[in-house]
Amino acid sequence: MAYRVGVVGAAGYAGAELVRLLLAHPDFELTAITSNADVNVKLADVYPAFAGETDLVFTAHDDPVLESLDAVFLAVPHTAAMGMVPGLLSHGVSVFDLSADYRLDDPDVYEAWYATPHTSPDLLKTRAFGLPELYAEDLASARAQHVAGEPALIACAGCYPTATSLAAAPALRMGWCRAQSLIVVDAISGVTGAGKGCTSRTHFCSADESVEAYGVCKHRHTPEIEQILGARDRVIFTPHLAPLKRGLLSTVTLQLDEGAHALSTEDAVRAYEEFYATSPLVKVLPAGAMPSTSSVVGTCSCQIGLAVDKRTGVLVAMAAIDNLCKGAAGQAVQCANIVFGLDERRGLPLVGMPV
Amino acid sequence: MAYRVGVVGAAGYAGAELVRLLLAHPDFELTAITSNADVNVKLADVYPAFAGETDLVFTAHDDPVLESLDAVFLAVPHTAAMGMVPGLLSHGVSVFDLSADYRLDDPDVYEAWYATPHTSPDLLKTRAFGLPELYAEDLASARAQHVAGEPALIACAGCYPTATSLAAAPALRMGWCRAQSLIVVDAISGVTGAGKGCTSRTHFCSADESVEAYGVCKHRHTPEIEQILGARDRVIFTPHLAPLKRGLLSTVTLQLDEGAHALSTEDAVRAYEEFYATSPLVKVLPAGAMPSTSSVVGTCSCQIGLAVDKRTGVLVAMAAIDNLCKGAAGQAVQCANIVFGLDERRGLPLVGMPV
Amino acid sequence: MAYRVGVVGAAGYAGAELVRLLLAHPDFELTAITSNADVNVKLADVYPAFAGETDLVFTAHDDPVLESLDAVFLAVPHTAAMGMVPGLLSHGVSVFDLSADYRLDDPDVYEAWYATPHTSPDLLKTRAFGLPELYAEDLASARAQHVAGEPALIACAGCYPTATSLAAAPALRMGWCRAQSLIVVDAISGVTGAGKGCTSRTHFCSADESVEAYGVCKHRHTPEIEQILGARDRVIFTPHLAPLKRGLLSTVTLQLDEGAHALSTEDAVRAYEEFYATSPLVKVLPAGAMPSTSSVVGTCSCQIGLAVDKRTGVLVAMAAIDNLCKGAAGQAVQCANIVFGLDERRGLPLVGMPV
Amino acid sequence: MAYRVGVVGAAGYAGAELVRLLLAHPDFELTAITSNADVNVKLADVYPAFAGETDLVFTAHDDPVLESLDAVFLAVPHTAAMGMVPGLLSHGVSVFDLSADYRLDDPDVYEAWYATPHTSPDLLKTRAFGLPELYAEDLASARAQHVAGEPALIACAGCYPTATSLAAAPALRMGWCRAQSLIVVDAISGVTGAGKGCTSRTHFCSADESVEAYGVCKHRHTPEIEQILGARDRVIFTPHLAPLKRGLLSTVTLQLDEGAHALSTEDAVRAYEEFYATSPLVKVLPAGAMPSTSSVVGTCSCQIGLAVDKRTGVLVAMAAIDNLCKGAAGQAVQCANIVFGLDERRGLPLVGMPV
Repeated sequence: MAYRVGVVGAAGYAGAELVRLLLAHPDFELTAITSNADVNVKLADVYPAFAGETDLVFTAHDDPVLESLDAVFLAVPHTAAMGMVPGLLSHGVSVFDLSADYRLDDPDVYEAWYATPHTSPDLLKTRAFGLPELYAEDLASARAQHVAGEPALIACAGCYPTATSLAAAPALRMGWCRAQSLIVVDAISGVTGAGKGCTSRTHFCSADESVEAYGVCKHRHTPEIEQILGARDRVIFTPHLAPLKRGLLSTVTLQLDEGAHALSTEDAVRAYEEFYATSPLVKVLPAGAMPSTSSVVGTCSCQIGLAVDKRTGVLVAMAAIDNLCKGAAGQAVQCANIVFGLDERRGLPLVGMPV
Repeated sequence: MAYRVGVVGAAGYAGAELVRLLLAHPDFELTAITSNADVNVKLADVYPAFAGETDLVFTAHDDPVLESLDAVFLAVPHTAAMGMVPGLLSHGVSVFDLSADYRLDDPDVYEAWYATPHTSPDLLKTRAFGLPELYAEDLASARAQHVAGEPALIACAGCYPTATSLAAAPALRMGWCRAQSLIVVDAISGVTGAGKGCTSRTHFCSADESVEAYGVCKHRHTPEIEQILGARDRVIFTPHLAPLKRGLLSTVTLQLDEGAHALSTEDAVRAYEEFYATSPLVKVLPAGAMPSTSSVVGTCSCQIGLAVDKRTGVLVAMAAIDNLCKGAAGQAVQCANIVFGLDERRGLPLVGMPV
Repeated sequence: MAYRVGVVGAAGYAGAELVRLLLAHPDFELTAITSNADVNVKLADVYPAFAGETDLVFTAHDDPVLESLDAVFLAVPHTAAMGMVPGLLSHGVSVFDLSADYRLDDPDVYEAWYATPHTSPDLLKTRAFGLPELYAEDLASARAQHVAGEPALIACAGCYPTATSLAAAPALRMGWCRAQSLIVVDAISGVTGAGKGCTSRTHFCSADESVEAYGVCKHRHTPEIEQILGARDRVIFTPHLAPLKRGLLSTVTLQLDEGAHALSTEDAVRAYEEFYATSPLVKVLPAGAMPSTSSVVGTCSCQIGLAVDKRTGVLVAMAAIDNLCKGAAGQAVQCANIVFGLDERRGLPLVGMPV
Repeated sequence: MAYRVGVVGAAGYAGAELVRLLLAHPDFELTAITSNADVNVKLADVYPAFAGETDLVFTAHDDPVLESLDAVFLAVPHTAAMGMVPGLLSHGVSVFDLSADYRLDDPDVYEAWYATPHTSPDLLKTRAFGLPELYAEDLASARAQHVAGEPALIACAGCYPTATSLAAAPALRMGWCRAQSLIVVDAISGVTGAGKGCTSRTHFCSADESVEAYGVCKHRHTPEIEQILGARDRVIFTPHLAPLKRGLLSTVTLQLDEGAHALSTEDAVRAYEEFYATSPLVKVLPAGAMPSTSSVVGTCSCQIGLAVDKRTGVLVAMAAIDNLCKGAAGQAVQCANIVFGLDERRGLPLVGMPV
């Protein structure tokens, strides 16, 4: 039996990626795709990759069919998500929210970084945080809710927080890092990360053959990273844009505690392998290898590379993901797989194009 | 029951794409991958996209297991293929050859363009030409051979001939074109088309931000295109290299016969749709739309666009494919599907990444 | 003594390239740059390449200083140019118009392709066509006008017509081509050719890793090419977009006349070298070499490659230019050099970055 | 009067860029270009950007004419440079060395990182370090040597050290940074930085659409950065490769001292502007703006952006350069300008292509 699902905001990049994954998923039946700007337009007219393979047509965000579905994936901007979630839950629909609205535990932090008050702060206490490798209990609770016949709300992690945390969290949780030390996160994203909107930054002739940083010291993924890592006011996050469509590499520099100064790169790799032993989407590369984004494009895999520098006493931890897949749509589907009791890999591409 | 298959030349780009497709194929069991230059090397060390998802290791081209398989896919250069095919057939192994060795009907034409005599010209009479949309009978014969317990030899069409012929053949077969008129083929390929070898042409800093033609008036795909189109000495084929990894667009300019001067673009689209009604991999776009290569990257789909210019009396027919997939590995798997009695789409990606 | 010049429409890509060239030109003093959308904005804020090197600020298109200048370069859309040219000329200002408004000899052809009547058709009789290598007399007349104290109007050729004609015109003028035969022009342009406007086509994520044709059988440069080549209703022009910023390659397939069937590639190269002996911006490559766009990016050079195919009786002629430089701004400056009595190369970059 | 100069290793990327700059330089006469692998080959055959504009032909590295020149630019690998420098100096030829051989003050550090002993350690005491904005005295000494009729040896700074130090040195020299604190340098380079050699890393199909780190914790530019910044064993340097030809962005995260916690971004910008007031090649961007590599490609300019994060007490300082120009060939010419008493900008491109 297939679960009936819908995608709200299906014309954006993350939304279209959700459609790609859900159409190929053996256990989900994609029943509705919405886009207020494209009502009655055929999906294939907006994304010709679907030509000849589906007749899906966009409806509006208030399409009543949504309320009858098993699950809805929300790929709309922040605040827009907050406006729809309580209603969907009240109809018994589980929600996988790709926006930032329910990610931060503390509504005050949300208001400080998003410059708008939270309108359903109570839900922050019960939502699951959608980063299965690091929040297994959250997903287990959401699964239990579903089994009990209640809808679940999953706040899927952002793209930068996903890659950064998969790279850094094991080291922090294993107690390798100096207390109160700064955590420097320099990340590079492909241009899909900047969204479908045409701007002077996303114009081909601006983005091509160029790298630049943006949102320096004020990117909204900063408090989310700090929350996951338990490192309040310790993360410097500098995101960069590079001329590729998909792919995100996060390079995290962590200061090792005295107690961890004997750690070798090989030790670190072994410990990470153990940490992720039950996480089939994460691949820890052997010592000496570093991940490249092209190896994970189109997939829900995450590749991690590690290097210990004894000279300066740091661990450089790196993770590569596809920002639209493991960093957005794929992770949402992974969460849905778990909530609905399927193998977390179900329907997800894990091997990319070799070249 | 799965058919046991192998890939010879699996370290090249087409070979690695075969591995990607065959690993995901529900009815083929990939048993051997060979590369004389990489014996005992893990596939994932050469192509990190496979990291954590397979333990396949390269063996040598003379791996004896090949002789026990149901089918072997040959992704080796011309002449190398010719050296292995008779032996494999003699062991009852069906061969899907991606090289040029068995494509040309006439061994003299082969010798003229490839500057080497053909060593098994007899096989040219019985091999099937692997371009299912235009050579259904050939594939049916190969299927019959398999059913009769005999191995089949399929000479899979080249990348440029595939796109060019899917664009131009219907117009020619339907008698729209002026007798003896020239057929101008200008095609653009991504750099994977130039192969895995590092040369001054394939260096990133040469290929990036540049387009150029190569092999002008002497590319070896010319006689193959002429053979498929039945247009001896009438095809001018100019291939270009553009800065993309995968993707091939062929733009064919055909002179319409007086009898076809009333033809509209809409008429042409309708006729092509009918022509390809039973070819699920080919998508004829509506009048006004033109294919882009990014819509088919990673897939075995072909998108076709058409425009009739009454002013000059020509049809411009265009086809976009992924040169490594529909233009090589995917088409070989499509042929194998047919020979083994499966749906021709079986295991093949048909929807690409939307962005 | 420097000539005082201005650029109208300086915020567009061709306009900004004009600014780059004029700022570096020893004999022109760039006095005004206009952009109605950017009045009072600093040039360097729109194009950071100028940061720290100029304090130029945009004024409006009706900046009165324009009427006092020696020359104005118009880089505005068609019809906008037509609205400004008569006024500027009446103030004695020579105009180098990069728009299409004064390119076509026949106002009816203009109206047919641009869907708007021409408002100053008389000027079409006296304007010079700005393609110096092929219209030396036009430029000589404009020079004479300037010497006589009269303003000149130069309709600079479009990007595709420039490359296409430099490749094809010598063959046609030397009588090599079959009378009434079709001329097939397949050209590839970088994305700057699509302009600064952010559209779904110019978004990085649409243009990157993709090639596609556009304006098939209806691109407005078609009649301009036919006019230059003297080939009414004989040109099939199919432009393509490829993922590069700058660069344009035009591949022209010409059917040779019986009389020219003995022509070798070497003969063709020699004849072209002679044809362009006094054109220092055009470089005819030796037989066997083909131009790549990266070799001319950033320069006002044009590289030409030739191949004769005796088998089919055609000449494939190819030209590579930088669409913004030789195809737009650079050619306008080249024309201005001639009109003001300077060496035509004056101030123009002719050597690009080697890599 | 022009100074006669030569380029040794002119077929590599930095060498070819030197040729581009020197051919356009009004005061240098490029007399010899050498490449042992390309003896008697025309420059334009290796780099078609020079076609039609120069007849230069490669000679061998031991071309005797080198000994008669005013200056030689060495663009050969480390150790090869060391083998030529003493000989050239002994003939009175000033040497601008782009290799690493004379950069490190301490021959033991050289041996530790380059795994080979230094063969002329005495020269390390007298050579000038070629990073004019930070080593004005060194250049002044070299200038004095030249005036005194003695040859000078300039060890030009590496690409990563140049960008990194221009971003970070002012903050350190002005005493803003916490003593002994770590300095995290994450830098991104275009593929020309990996050199002209064709490798699996520089193949278009590897580098395109991908970012990855390399040489993590062991890149040889690390001790050079530490030397310039006076920060022994405090620099974590992680270089990344991105899919662009030219351009280098270095992002440096510096921990502010308690005393500097009141510093605002505006303060930092003002102080940097003052620091670089007499350095015309460095442009400090206003608060809020961050440099992009495309703004400096093809030029010898450096753009710097700054952001103070009071929350975490850090300064993020960023510099963008063209790795082949300000990061290699251009900086060498800048040094030569100074040594020969010319304006340091002489002959150097400072404005790039706007798009």
